Amino acid sequence: TTFEMDAKHGTDYHERFKKFLIYVQQNDLVVDGCMTDARGDRSKSPGQQPDPDAYLHVVEKREDGIVVRGCKLHQTGMINSHEILVMPNNALKEDEQEWAVCFAVPTDAPGMLYVYGRQSCDTRKLEDNKIDVGNINFGGQEVMTIFNNVFVPWERVFMNGETDFSTTLVERFAGYHRQSYGGCKVGTGDTLIGAVKAITDYNGASKASHVKDKIVEMCHLNETLFACGIACSAAGRKTAAGNYLIDLLLANICKQNVTRFPYEIARIAQDLAGGLLVTQPSAQDYDNPEIGPLVKKYTQAADDSEKRQRMLRYIENLTMGCGAVGYLTESMHGAGSPQAQRIMISRLIDLQHRKDLAEKLCGIQENHDIDWK
Amino acid sequence: TTFEMDAKHGTDYHERFKKFLIYVQQNDLVVDGCMTDARGDRSKSPGQQPDPDAYLHVVEKREDGIVVRGCKLHQTGMINSHEILVMPNNALKEDEQEWAVCFAVPTDAPGMLYVYGRQSCDTRKLEDNKIDVGNINFGGQEVMTIFNNVFVPWERVFMNGETDFSTTLVERFAGYHRQSYGGCKVGTGDTLIGAVKAITDYNGASKASHVKDKIVEMCHLNETLFACGIACSAAGRKTAAGNYLIDLLLANICKQNVTRFPYEIARIAQDLAGGLLVTQPSAQDYDNPEIGPLVKKYTQAADDSEKRQRMLRYIENLTMGCGAVGYLTESMHGAGSPQAQRIMISRLIDLQHRKDLAEKLCGIQENHDIDWK
Amino acid sequence: TTFEMDAKHGTDYHERFKKFLIYVQQNDLVVDGCMTDARGDRSKSPGQQPDPDAYLHVVEKREDGIVVRGCKLHQTGMINSHEILVMPNNALKEDEQEWAVCFAVPTDAPGMLYVYGRQSCDTRKLEDNKIDVGNINFGGQEVMTIFNNVFVPWERVFMNGETDFSTTLVERFAGYHRQSYGGCKVGTGDTLIGAVKAITDYNGASKASHVKDKIVEMCHLNETLFACGIACSAAGRKTAAGNYLIDLLLANICKQNVTRFPYEIARIAQDLAGGLLVTQPSAQDYDNPEIGPLVKKYTQAADDSEKRQRMLRYIENLTMGCGAVGYLTESMHGAGSPQAQRIMISRLIDLQHRKDLAEKLCGIQENHDIDWK
Amino acid sequence: TTFEMDAKHGTDYHERFKKFLIYVQQNDLVVDGCMTDARGDRSKSPGQQPDPDAYLHVVEKREDGIVVRGCKLHQTGMINSHEILVMPNNALKEDEQEWAVCFAVPTDAPGMLYVYGRQSCDTRKLEDNKIDVGNINFGGQEVMTIFNNVFVPWERVFMNGETDFSTTLVERFAGYHRQSYGGCKVGTGDTLIGAVKAITDYNGASKASHVKDKIVEMCHLNETLFACGIACSAAGRKTAAGNYLIDLLLANICKQNVTRFPYEIARIAQDLAGGLLVTQPSAQDYDNPEIGPLVKKYTQAADDSEKRQRMLRYIENLTMGCGAVGYLTESMHGAGSPQAQRIMISRLIDLQHRKDLAEKLCGIQENHDIDWK
Ligand SMILES: Cc1cc2nc3c(=O)[nH]c(=O)nc-3n(C[C@H](O)[C@H](O)[C@H](O)COP(=O)(O)OP(=O)(O)OC[C@H]3O[C@@H](n4cnc5c(N)ncnc54)[C@H](O)[C@@H]3O)c2cc1C
Ligand SMILES: Cc1cc2nc3c(=O)[nH]c(=O)nc-3n(C[C@H](O)[C@H](O)[C@H](O)COP(=O)(O)OP(=O)(O)OC[C@H]3O[C@@H](n4cnc5c(N)ncnc54)[C@H](O)[C@@H]3O)c2cc1C
Ligand SMILES: Cc1cc2nc3c(=O)[nH]c(=O)nc-3n(C[C@H](O)[C@H](O)[C@H](O)COP(=O)(O)OP(=O)(O)OC[C@H]3O[C@@H](n4cnc5c(N)ncnc54)[C@H](O)[C@@H]3O)c2cc1C
Ligand SMILES: Cc1cc2nc3c(=O)[nH]c(=O)nc-3n(C[C@H](O)[C@H](O)[C@H](O)COP(=O)(O)OP(=O)(O)OC[C@H]3O[C@@H](n4cnc5c(N)ncnc54)[C@H](O)[C@@H]3O)c2cc1C
Ligand SMILES: [Fe+3]
Ligand SMILES: [Fe+3]
Ligand SMILES: [Fe+3]
Ligand SMILES: [Fe+3]
Repeated sequence: TTFEMDAKHGTDYHERFKKFLIYVQQNDLVVDGCMTDARGDRSKSPGQQPDPDAYLHVVEKREDGIVVRGCKLHQTGMINSHEILVMPNNALKEDEQEWAVCFAVPTDAPGMLYVYGRQSCDTRKLEDNKIDVGNINFGGQEVMTIFNNVFVPWERVFMNGETDFSTTLVERFAGYHRQSYGGCKVGTGDTLIGAVKAITDYNGASKASHVKDKIVEMCHLNETLFACGIACSAAGRKTAAGNYLIDLLLANICKQNVTRFPYEIARIAQDLAGGLLVTQPSAQDYDNPEIGPLVKKYTQAADDSEKRQRMLRYIENLTMGCGAVGYLTESMHGAGSPQAQRIMISRLIDLQHRKDLAEKLCGIQENHDIDWK
Repeated sequence: TTFEMDAKHGTDYHERFKKFLIYVQQNDLVVDGCMTDARGDRSKSPGQQPDPDAYLHVVEKREDGIVVRGCKLHQTGMINSHEILVMPNNALKEDEQEWAVCFAVPTDAPGMLYVYGRQSCDTRKLEDNKIDVGNINFGGQEVMTIFNNVFVPWERVFMNGETDFSTTLVERFAGYHRQSYGGCKVGTGDTLIGAVKAITDYNGASKASHVKDKIVEMCHLNETLFACGIACSAAGRKTAAGNYLIDLLLANICKQNVTRFPYEIARIAQDLAGGLLVTQPSAQDYDNPEIGPLVKKYTQAADDSEKRQRMLRYIENLTMGCGAVGYLTESMHGAGSPQAQRIMISRLIDLQHRKDLAEKLCGIQENHDIDWK
Repeated sequence: TTFEMDAKHGTDYHERFKKFLIYVQQNDLVVDGCMTDARGDRSKSPGQQPDPDAYLHVVEKREDGIVVRGCKLHQTGMINSHEILVMPNNALKEDEQEWAVCFAVPTDAPGMLYVYGRQSCDTRKLEDNKIDVGNINFGGQEVMTIFNNVFVPWERVFMNGETDFSTTLVERFAGYHRQSYGGCKVGTGDTLIGAVKAITDYNGASKASHVKDKIVEMCHLNETLFACGIACSAAGRKTAAGNYLIDLLLANICKQNVTRFPYEIARIAQDLAGGLLVTQPSAQDYDNPEIGPLVKKYTQAADDSEKRQRMLRYIENLTMGCGAVGYLTESMHGAGSPQAQRIMISRLIDLQHRKDLAEKLCGIQENHDIDWK
Repeated sequence: TTFEMDAKHGTDYHERFKKFLIYVQQNDLVVDGCMTDARGDRSKSPGQQPDPDAYLHVVEKREDGIVVRGCKLHQTGMINSHEILVMPNNALKEDEQEWAVCFAVPTDAPGMLYVYGRQSCDTRKLEDNKIDVGNINFGGQEVMTIFNNVFVPWERVFMNGETDFSTTLVERFAGYHRQSYGGCKVGTGDTLIGAVKAITDYNGASKASHVKDKIVEMCHLNETLFACGIACSAAGRKTAAGNYLIDLLLANICKQNVTRFPYEIARIAQDLAGGLLVTQPSAQDYDNPEIGPLVKKYTQAADDSEKRQRMLRYIENLTMGCGAVGYLTESMHGAGSPQAQRIMISRLIDLQHRKDLAEKLCGIQENHDIDWK
């Protein structure tokens, strides 16, 4: 996109961006893709908001750079990133130039403020016994990222007022992101399928035909997402700038399915896990010298009760705990809410072409493709 | 069922049970319907389990009563009940008499042990600020209920060895329970629909056509459950014992839908709520003198930021927090896992009758219903 | 509705209508409920149409009655009805009085014209061998019903210009009709379930677990529709006029499900029927002296080949033949397209009440229902 | 597969097959892939059938070749093919060698008999006016193909008794076929989407938000199938024999979706088309000098009535007429019924690997992938 901006506007964003990218790659840095604004009243565009900071914008232009203010919500992994790459949130009108800004800052730049988001069951991570967390070693976080008058030097500014490119930039970033879920959420789904296979083994239920069939259904849904992810890439093509762009339509198709199937996979997982998923005593009760042995005796199924305890916690984690933030709600909203994809699909599909095909087949239009000789 | 047992076996369970019921009603007591056993290996029946206590059973018969041992899992509201009415978990074979036992004990009977189940986000209830709980005043609990050699006097025993009635008892109890979800889960669903209406108002998004359409879909699914609940009762009939029995087939239909629609309603709720549902800062951050004002500034939408904060916590509660235990997982497993209803449906539907109809219509069987004269 | 019109406008429609009804009941006549107009351009209301006849209207008022012109489409069973009861198609604006007309005429009134609609596979009924029709004795028809300047005497006019009651009339008629599908389509569904049970028996496949499970699913969906139908009636109530009115909200819920489940039932039916459903040779080939024996030899499964032949034709009839008109497309559009129900649901659901509930639960509104003492 | 058979059994099938393929390509011949046997009782394997001809088999081995008997059902496009490539129907046991036969014959070989299958609405093609067919120029056919003692010379025999390769051959052929539907059915779907766009334009309904949203849903489902088709190929790989093999798991995923989505697309199409789809008068009535003008007057919407007439017939064709055979029922059964894909998915998915992942994440197995240093 920087390449195309330069071509049209004579700017040198592409060169600046390449330098930044080389710096990032040489130092093996983690960069947070930072797009989603606070957004205030959803029915108003950036310029119409009572509080102009509802969308991050340029509040001052200086000789050596710009000063920005605003807040980017829901930033995944922000706290463990080195750099932040900020982009505008959405398509902008011509007079909304101050919001058309793209730049990079290090996470420890002056004026940056981070407010950690609460996740379901987050405080279990602070308890002594880690079993109740479910996912023993891993987790993530989303962070409210406040830019409280942050200075950005010119060489780190990659867009500044080019409202005519905001749409392209947003659609492409969202496109890559929507495709990426065809891998990310599928991997998580794989572990959930494995967990369900495990728990039904432990319970002694894995040979029942409905159990096997439901696991097939989970796999089917998960692999459909995988297929969508693969297809985005396979149908991608080289751009003038030299990078490869995924197929935008298929990326939106991919993400739209991601807003549905993980929820159904999670529902089936809860079916096969059994009710202990949500009524299991705390890990402290399992360890309690008096009560513990009875708890274990009565949660024993076809395998060791600790296995069942741990695996149920893992399934709880992914379907309603910390992990559900990433596996479910992020599947819904990350890279844009479902309706955002539907709008893109309606734009990218050529309905007129399809209408012509139909009109030829039923004889409304003449069909020149046919040559009966 | 006690009535029918007496008729067949000459016992006097019905009289005993009526006395118990009168006692309960006169003292306005809460009784826990206590059915689900620990169950050990799911592929083995009670008599085949390595540990005979996997299903609650009679371990001693005395002159004045019986002594029982076992564990009933997942008991909703046990801690706030006065009495426990214990029933066998499932159909039993003739030689599994010791598990065919039905009785009542007060919750504080000697030998009773209760282990409180953990719920998602449970410890938020212990935090100072209650906003993060979502549902400020209400909650529930499921309790592992251990009968550690508990004595039951004869007048409190309502079944003792009558394996031939275990199926009937289980099917009827489950039937009532499956019907009841056509009210219980619908009410919860109503509050979730209201919460979603509220949050879209606060966000300024409630006029978008997809938003309105999704709320209609939530209502449609919820009211379908309600219709199923009503139909169970409307099609019920009086039994020989004088009580009314709901339509068993429709009760199973009702519950089967309950294992599906609340999950879809919750999925739509998460769509319309927006991502802040899972990335919202803690109530402490909202109250923090330094950070608080910024948090509020940036979570302000079309209405007051505290409204949004509270309502998102309520939706979180129902879709992944404490409330999700009751609204989702209990919808799945309470009163029996989905497959249990499917087995009942296949038993209660008369396929032969339907086959006959079809064979008459296509001329395989003669159709005596027709008289063309 | 006539009762309420009289109360407001001082008319005597109710008396007229009761006389008509008594006449109908005493002579045991079939009356076609005739609502759906031709409707021209869907984006225009009756008064805006280039051709005013797009909606049936009064073209002349005479001393002894009115003359009407227009066309009612899709009239089920018109040809086998004695009388036609015409109602306006939809809500009308104040200045659209000429379209606010309700009356009855006998089917052989002068000026009436009927154009029989084509159904899928209709001409099979004209073939010598009836097996290929599938449903040997029964069928139906929808008829384009043209009112070419038809005279209606005053005693047969039940509404004439009362635009303020058009909405009520339409909503109630549609309501009853939407409820009735909870019986009608369920009965047809029962025969389809029976047909599928039969064909899997004939094929030797009925013991496979996925086959049994799919039949359970068909039953589950069908009985859900049945439950919705029952609920509409059970929740109905007496009106001031003395007749009983079904619960309008539940009637719309019922019909909305009818626009979905029969299609899924038909899909499963096609799965279990097997591919011969659509590749089966003609009945003439079965009877052919040369080819017939080979055709029978190779369509023989676990039962007599003629049974299979007939039953597959019956399933074809219901899922893509004449019967599919009534079982599928009428389930979609009869009594109004799906969107019509959604609009009604959104009107009849009290969202504000549900919002209040949610606001009380999360502490936005004070909860006066609670009294902790 | 012939390559691998030769490697194991020292046969020369590969050479024979290559010769056949070169012959086909040089003469640009159409070859019918001929797999599905009559199959008799579904619960019995080929060797257990009362009639051994239920599965095509070798009835005589001669010096110059073999003689085969049996019947292949549902052969798409058989009548317009030059050659038939016959394969066994399914996995075979060691003692079922006579059914393990693969060969090619020209369609006019002595002993071949063809019985044309009836399609829904087939006789409309014989009527004078072609409009009611819907798809004016195109159609297809499935043919019962009887091999009544047909001789096959050795150079045309590609498998003869190698039961150990029947599974591989069937799975691969089915795999390619299942992938191919990710293109074939998507193309048909495109024309249906176009038809629906057209009819809503003609009706004046295409600007309604629910109409646009439903078209997006149709596109979404159709493109998901397309993505699955693309993914099968993109994830394919070269075999030892030199040809490319699609990804078998994804091919089964693709087909499984094909058994669902076209039905939902067709359902939506019927919604948006309106009820005239199934109640439209015959083309003869449109042309009738007396009735015709009235029919046209009252079927006029926002565009020319003939356009509407033709387009509705096209949608009827695809959703319940001749075209529904290919678009719906073939989507269900072609290349194997849904359950066939589920069995393949359960075989091709590595559940143990997924179980290991889950056990590592919740601490049951040690996680050697982690190195915290
Ligand atoms: C929130 C909640 C509240 C509850 N409240 C009560 C209550 O108040 N009183 C009460 O008595 N009970 C209560 N229950 C218990 C409920 O009835 C059980 O959860 C339910 O019967 C399922 O049993 P389970 O949890 O042991 O699951 P499991 O039996 O372990 O089932 C897990 C999965 O395995 C399958 N499966 C298990 N065994 C077999 C088998 N043999 N063959 C085939 N498939 C099998 C199931 O179909 C399911 O898919 C509650 C449960 C929950 C979750
Ligand atoms: C777990 C998680 C991780 C995320 N990670 C990142 C990240 O790393 N980087 C990043 O930049 N962003 C991230 N996001 C943000 C994500 O892109 C947004 O959540 C998404 O764009 C939706 O915005 P929102 O949450 O404000 O919801 P809202 O915009 O409030 O949407 C709520 C509902 O209202 C509807 N709606 C809103 N406005 C309108 C309108 N004007 N017209 C019609 N309907 C409307 C939506 O369709 C939706 O149904 C993440 C989000 C989540 C939940
Ligand atoms: C339009 C169309 C075009 C086709 N084109 C071709 C073609 O070109 N070439 C070709 O070779 N074939 C073709 N086929 C055949 C196709 O592969 C078969 O239809 C398919 O394999 C299903 O077999 P069936 O129709 O005999 O159904 P059945 O096998 O009778 O299946 C009916 C139902 O019974 C179930 N069932 C059957 N047997 C069992 C069992 N043992 N255990 C459990 N469940 C069972 C099935 O799962 C299914 O639900 C075509 C089919 C159709 C409909
Ligand atoms: C088999 C069958 C039997 C029937 N039997 C009877 C009967 O006995 N008596 C009787 O009176 N009627 C009967 N009907 C008519 C039925 O009520 C209508 O089909 C129905 O109201 C839909 O109208 P339509 O067919 O003109 O479709 P359309 O109105 O053309 O609808 C097609 C699509 O366009 C949409 N649409 C249309 N207009 C608008 C708009 N303004 N805004 C938004 N979306 C729009 C619809 O929602 C739908 O998705 C029958 C119909 C069928 C199919
Ligand atoms: Fe993210
Ligand atoms: Fe409960
Ligand atoms: Fe009708
Ligand atoms: Fe085919």
